[in-house]
Amino acid sequence: MTKTLTVAQLAELLGGEVLIDSAVLITGISEPENALASHCTFLLEQRPLARTEAAVLITPAGIMLDFIPQAHITVANSRLAFAKTLAYFYPEPITAPKVGIHPQASVDPTAQIDPSASVAAHVYVGAGAIVGAGSKLFAGVYLGSGVTVGADCLLYPNAVVLDHCVLGNRVILNPGAVIGGDGFGFVTTRQGHLKIPQTGKVILEDDVEIGANTTIDRATLRETKIGRGTKIDNLVMIGHNAQVGDDCMIISQSGIAGSTKLGDRCIVAAQAGIASLGHVEIGSDSVVYGRAGVHKSFAAGSQIAGFPAQEHKKERRQQVSLTRVPELISEMRQLKRRLEELETALQNPPVD
Amino acid sequence: MTKTLTVAQLAELLGGEVLIDSAVLITGISEPENALASHCTFLLEQRPLARTEAAVLITPAGIMLDFIPQAHITVANSRLAFAKTLAYFYPEPITAPKVGIHPQASVDPTAQIDPSASVAAHVYVGAGAIVGAGSKLFAGVYLGSGVTVGADCLLYPNAVVLDHCVLGNRVILNPGAVIGGDGFGFVTTRQGHLKIPQTGKVILEDDVEIGANTTIDRATLRETKIGRGTKIDNLVMIGHNAQVGDDCMIISQSGIAGSTKLGDRCIVAAQAGIASLGHVEIGSDSVVYGRAGVHKSFAAGSQIAGFPAQEHKKERRQQVSLTRVPELISEMRQLKRRLEELETALQNPPVD
Amino acid sequence: MTKTLTVAQLAELLGGEVLIDSAVLITGISEPENALASHCTFLLEQRPLARTEAAVLITPAGIMLDFIPQAHITVANSRLAFAKTLAYFYPEPITAPKVGIHPQASVDPTAQIDPSASVAAHVYVGAGAIVGAGSKLFAGVYLGSGVTVGADCLLYPNAVVLDHCVLGNRVILNPGAVIGGDGFGFVTTRQGHLKIPQTGKVILEDDVEIGANTTIDRATLRETKIGRGTKIDNLVMIGHNAQVGDDCMIISQSGIAGSTKLGDRCIVAAQAGIASLGHVEIGSDSVVYGRAGVHKSFAAGSQIAGFPAQEHKKERRQQVSLTRVPELISEMRQLKRRLEELETALQNPPVD
Repeated sequence: MTKTLTVAQLAELLGGEVLIDSAVLITGISEPENALASHCTFLLEQRPLARTEAAVLITPAGIMLDFIPQAHITVANSRLAFAKTLAYFYPEPITAPKVGIHPQASVDPTAQIDPSASVAAHVYVGAGAIVGAGSKLFAGVYLGSGVTVGADCLLYPNAVVLDHCVLGNRVILNPGAVIGGDGFGFVTTRQGHLKIPQTGKVILEDDVEIGANTTIDRATLRETKIGRGTKIDNLVMIGHNAQVGDDCMIISQSGIAGSTKLGDRCIVAAQAGIASLGHVEIGSDSVVYGRAGVHKSFAAGSQIAGFPAQEHKKERRQQVSLTRVPELISEMRQLKRRLEELETALQNPPVD
Repeated sequence: MTKTLTVAQLAELLGGEVLIDSAVLITGISEPENALASHCTFLLEQRPLARTEAAVLITPAGIMLDFIPQAHITVANSRLAFAKTLAYFYPEPITAPKVGIHPQASVDPTAQIDPSASVAAHVYVGAGAIVGAGSKLFAGVYLGSGVTVGADCLLYPNAVVLDHCVLGNRVILNPGAVIGGDGFGFVTTRQGHLKIPQTGKVILEDDVEIGANTTIDRATLRETKIGRGTKIDNLVMIGHNAQVGDDCMIISQSGIAGSTKLGDRCIVAAQAGIASLGHVEIGSDSVVYGRAGVHKSFAAGSQIAGFPAQEHKKERRQQVSLTRVPELISEMRQLKRRLEELETALQNPPVD
Repeated sequence: MTKTLTVAQLAELLGGEVLIDSAVLITGISEPENALASHCTFLLEQRPLARTEAAVLITPAGIMLDFIPQAHITVANSRLAFAKTLAYFYPEPITAPKVGIHPQASVDPTAQIDPSASVAAHVYVGAGAIVGAGSKLFAGVYLGSGVTVGADCLLYPNAVVLDHCVLGNRVILNPGAVIGGDGFGFVTTRQGHLKIPQTGKVILEDDVEIGANTTIDRATLRETKIGRGTKIDNLVMIGHNAQVGDDCMIISQSGIAGSTKLGDRCIVAAQAGIASLGHVEIGSDSVVYGRAGVHKSFAAGSQIAGFPAQEHKKERRQQVSLTRVPELISEMRQLKRRLEELETALQNPPVD
């Protein structure tokens, strides 16, 4: 049952070149420093490595080694090769529920579950919901009325998708993710904050991944949208009516306020925030640095940092200038003294 | 089954005035830019709008339009009118579970569930818990022993309320909210951090709303309290024994540390933090700006910003002053040169 | 059924000394300001207290009182005594599920549940999982395949532990905690962000406590580890492959990025972040201040603050210097004027 590969087979799988061959059968993958003798291992980039016990070392071409490995394969993209090798040896790192509907699930009779989908115990599927081929709903998942889940999705335990939200194909929801909770919308009156009904939905396009306990609110009207291929980390908050483009990366504990627009291929680093005053737009291919607090729009390709956020280079210059303030204070003191001496000298000019 | 309104009926619902009437039947609500021809739409405040397909436009009185709408209603409070119209057309945006106790729920025989309440599949209700009239517990909700839930509450999927916590009437818990987890209290000894039992509870008064995956810890003794009408967004953390007043708004990813006191009608903007050293008190009607980090108490009506937080005006002045530091550095360089020239001139006075 | 203690018995329980005795029977514990007459109460440190209704006051030795209490016990460590007293009067503040497997649970036949363990309704336990003696799984808990849970653990409602993760003894997971979600690992290719399979696990050693809705990602290879006795608060994010030492305290809404190493007895205060660029290491006994943003490694015993984070003393000096910038600006203005006057004077020397 154990999967094995020869060095040549592994090289073929990775589209790599065998520099040093060996007859060993590879049975798994390890880190270089603590590899098993029957495992392959990766040096993802040039760094010091004294040796490895691994059966075969995979590296980028042109890397310098301080030792001769048992076997050696070079590849064009070592991280891609690493991902492919992991996928080969661990095709299903998390055991999915069995195909079919578990008797302890609660599925509305009007829901359409593809016969190849898996619906585990304690799953709830509401009226008119649709679950596509090969999708797997782990225990405790909630799908509201009219939710659509495409093919080959993974909805991990206790993920929640409220009514009418739409998930494309190959969408992954990590445990506890909440898709379609109420947007935070109120009218403040003399009787207090009156709730504005949140009647829209959330759309997660194909290949979107959502982190554990991340929350994406449904729109007031129409939709909150996360574009194709965008990956969102844990504990991120996306407000109602936000529009996130394709292939973005949004790192953990960031917040994107309601009605914000993010272009394609943007990166939002950890603990950053983008606020909604005036409906901010961030152009495609922009990077929002960690802990940045963004209050205004930026053009495509911007590097954004600091709070209040500005272009990274400008922000960097200002940060550096601030470290010089203690020095400025002492220089100011000196200058004042020298100036006083001059003033004194001029008022009392030296007698010849 | 579709709900419809004439222009006159809509104006009556909103307490508005018909400026331009029309015979069309209104069947829903859209945004101005992409409205259906049978929908009403809102211009919430003065902003450029070239036209709308909507059957009727609702605006504040006195707004200037660049076009003549099909029909036109003016209202005193456009956001309130918007909320009322949404509530009319979408009385239940999320389908609630059926009235009664689902056979796949687990309800302790000593719990008292009002006959008009809904308890969905996979709900757990502990011993002695009380659920009031019309309250709806979605699938996966957990109510611990002795929990009290008032009337007309909405507890969305996988919300958790631990033992003895008390929810008033019309309380909303978004999915994954955790009410009454252990406060973070330890005594550090030579044997490590010894847990201080957290024996109190959480009280959420009437009309409180709690966001998705927000956590409110129960008190060590007595209670953590969220006052009537306060609205809390997603991923917020409220520590044990905190006392939050009435009608506050606490925006997403903010944290309020244990034993903090917040007055009434306070706003805490996104990603702000209020720390507990010395048991901070924030007076009523204060605003804590986004990402502020508050370590000390502030009087009622304060505008609080920055980290360490101070009065917003002072903080603003200081922030502006910091942007002048690069300029200060270059001015300092100039001054030094000019001073050196003067010193040189004085040491070598010009020969007459 | 009510637990009671005499003053002498309470003193014995706490290892304290009776300064003033009384015949009253103690039935509970209150705060000094609103104590019941049959309760004990604690003054944890010297602070003004006018009086208390409590039957007995427990204080550190040597404390000064403004009144004579009904009875008085002094103890060496008042917080430890407080914890012990709470544990005596509230041995189980949250009612645990009954011992045995609830018929509405879903337990794989290959799982090994100790007969003294409790598995509530709506719990899922996967193939080959092991649950130790006395451990309590509340409703909605998910244990994936091959998970190991030691003895006397408390897994509160809706906590999720994915496949192959390992929990030691006396581990506490607060509600909604997610252990072992996918690490955030991707290779960016022309076809988008390709997922790097996350094949490792999470290890929580003995006496670890994890806060509500906190997420700890499983490693890409091998393990993410939280050391013995470490306590983690709510809404914290721990990235894949992070290594946290023993007896640390990580306060709410902090984030520790993948591959970060934290020594023993470190404190990470609220809303701080430790980023992964270059695989940061924080030495033992370090303190990361609230809202600090750490990008580089620090030696053992460091006090770390600010963003970008530096030694606290240095950061403090710099913060103080920044408050002087407005003053610097006005001094600079004065200096320039005085310098101009001197320059003028020298160019037009006074005529004798």
